[in-house]
Amino acid sequence: MQIAILLYEGMTALDAIGPYEVLRLLPGATVHFVAETPGPTRTDSGFLSLVADTALSEVAQPDIVLLPGGPGTFAAASNEHILNWLRTAHATTRWTTSVCTGSLILGAAGLLQGLHATTHWLLHAALERFGATYTPERYVQQGKIITAAGVSAGIDMALFLASEIAGDETAQAIQLALEYAPHPPFNTGSPQQASAEIIERAQHLLSGSNSNK
Amino acid sequence: MQIAILLYEGMTALDAIGPYEVLRLLPGATVHFVAETPGPTRTDSGFLSLVADTALSEVAQPDIVLLPGGPGTFAAASNEHILNWLRTAHATTRWTTSVCTGSLILGAAGLLQGLHATTHWLLHAALERFGATYTPERYVQQGKIITAAGVSAGIDMALFLASEIAGDETAQAIQLALEYAPHPPFNTGSPQQASAEIIERAQHLLSGSNSNK
Repeated sequence: MQIAILLYEGMTALDAIGPYEVLRLLPGATVHFVAETPGPTRTDSGFLSLVADTALSEVAQPDIVLLPGGPGTFAAASNEHILNWLRTAHATTRWTTSVCTGSLILGAAGLLQGLHATTHWLLHAALERFGATYTPERYVQQGKIITAAGVSAGIDMALFLASEIAGDETAQAIQLALEYAPHPPFNTGSPQQASAEIIERAQHLLSGSNSNK
Repeated sequence: MQIAILLYEGMTALDAIGPYEVLRLLPGATVHFVAETPGPTRTDSGFLSLVADTALSEVAQPDIVLLPGGPGTFAAASNEHILNWLRTAHATTRWTTSVCTGSLILGAAGLLQGLHATTHWLLHAALERFGATYTPERYVQQGKIITAAGVSAGIDMALFLASEIAGDETAQAIQLALEYAPHPPFNTGSPQQASAEIIERAQHLLSGSNSNK
């Protein structure tokens, strides 16, 4: 099973690494980190590069596509090389997936028209401009397309995907392997749970998070 | 605030990237990915390299040290360059932290003698050989040392650390920025929650997870 995870400048690392850590444990999985130009790819903070070993053109027919989000999504979503690769790959994937604002790349490729989908809570209006209906759930499945909410939601989505591919027991074993019994010290992970002040602070943090480059 | 995250061959990516994604949003944070030899560092699956921009010697007095775990931990924990760097850095850190089997590096450096600590559930016996008492909690604080349980537990630990450094409201805003309202499809993330069969499957997955190189 060939899994292609897209990397691009200005992406958010955890969007990719969360689901990667789940999916790479699937028996028979081969994960390809792909980019328009192979090599180190700078993430949004400016502090970290992930390496794309493989060019888009080398993985033309993956079984699974995963698109991370991040401040660089808008550039990625208007990059015709990426969009053409995605459209071609999607024609033969078993699953086409996104995390966070990665769904905007799906939208820009014309793949979300008329569908329910999710994205980072802060960018839901941008998602709807592509003809999708924003659905504030942890992940949303529509046929073979699965979109996950912001950043950390990719882990939950990938466990669901693992269960669809290899059965509940394998997915449960992966969850245990990653000791994923989440217990955050607070309960403010969605805008429904957070106060207006915390929402404003989060917006402020996110607006500054791209400034360390 | 200078944050040093250690990279080494055979580490588990999410151990580092989960807490990184939290801590890099702290106001004033600078994150250094450090390694004995700067450059691309291959993670445990063989599918992914993270780039260390900086040599250990260039970040001698970080405010925070974070040690990820993974199958490569045993080699890292017997690497005198790493252990010497860690001992020196620890003398002046505000916080010295680990995720998963990263605590074995702390142990090998002699920093866990007589303390409560945690690690990946599968390796608790190895932790106790360093004089620590294994404590199966999501994260364990002992003075300025905080150890987190397996892989994903680093996210929870980092949110706690963020609250200690910048206050609860900033930590809560970071949680919201990462949309960290975890909702996995299963409830098998700790050995206390999983059946014997799922535990055996997880052990099998983990034993094979280092074989793709």
